Amino acid sequence: MDPRTGAAGGIGRYDAVLARIAFNADGLVPAIAQDEASGQILMMAWMNAEAVIETLETRRGVYWSRSRNRIWRKGESSGQMQQLKAFRIDCDGDTVLLLVDQQGVACHTGRRSCFYDEVNPETGAITTIMTPEIDPETLYGR
Amino acid sequence: MDPRTGAAGGIGRYDAVLARIAFNADGLVPAIAQDEASGQILMMAWMNAEAVIETLETRRGVYWSRSRNRIWRKGESSGQMQQLKAFRIDCDGDTVLLLVDQQGVACHTGRRSCFYDEVNPETGAITTIMTPEIDPETLYGR
Repeated sequence: MDPRTGAAGGIGRYDAVLARIAFNADGLVPAIAQDEASGQILMMAWMNAEAVIETLETRRGVYWSRSRNRIWRKGESSGQMQQLKAFRIDCDGDTVLLLVDQQGVACHTGRRSCFYDEVNPETGAITTIMTPEIDPETLYGR
Repeated sequence: MDPRTGAAGGIGRYDAVLARIAFNADGLVPAIAQDEASGQILMMAWMNAEAVIETLETRRGVYWSRSRNRIWRKGESSGQMQQLKAFRIDCDGDTVLLLVDQQGVACHTGRRSCFYDEVNPETGAITTIMTPEIDPETLYGR
């Protein structure tokens, strides 16, 4: 598949989508994943054009891993895949939003969401408000 | 106020928070604003250390405007302020989440949320799924 044209499903099928997204200087755009059913925000990751196209074509959350510097098909190691329910772009095109059906947990710590630390504005204290649902060792088979 | 120490409320009150956040090379972190009551994602913007501190101190959404290159107190022009209900940090500290009570609308287009354009994965067509609730000219007094 040509990642720029999405040729598997017709030449240039996603050209308007790629043109609508304001990728940054590194060719990336922040992508928020939200649980469609509960509204919970699960994680924030990054996408390049190839990840956008593969997400739309396969209806699964696919990102660009900045740490591993490669395409990251969410769940490829952990099994915790994301089925795409909706894909939205914000007003100025510099963020995308995925509504997903998250299998299991989104966070590599075994928590449902990555946003598990809450700040008390009064004191500045940080409290962990979510417990892991799965042992990360189970998730990654180590 | 010293933006690094948040001295208005005690020296270093937010030091642990600032240390927990992985600001990027520009000293910024992406901040997602979510409506506390409905779960709707309203917008994504950026914060520097000063914006984080002022948000926590004043319990109002305060960001760093990359286009205007200055602190942006959400609602300062439009009146559409965000009252902070919770402030969370993700697992690797490179994104923050604000649960807010949004007055009026979050988007400068007059829509409740900035994420109003939806992509059809089958065709690649982009459809606007939200209508403005307020005329932007009313919001900005022009």
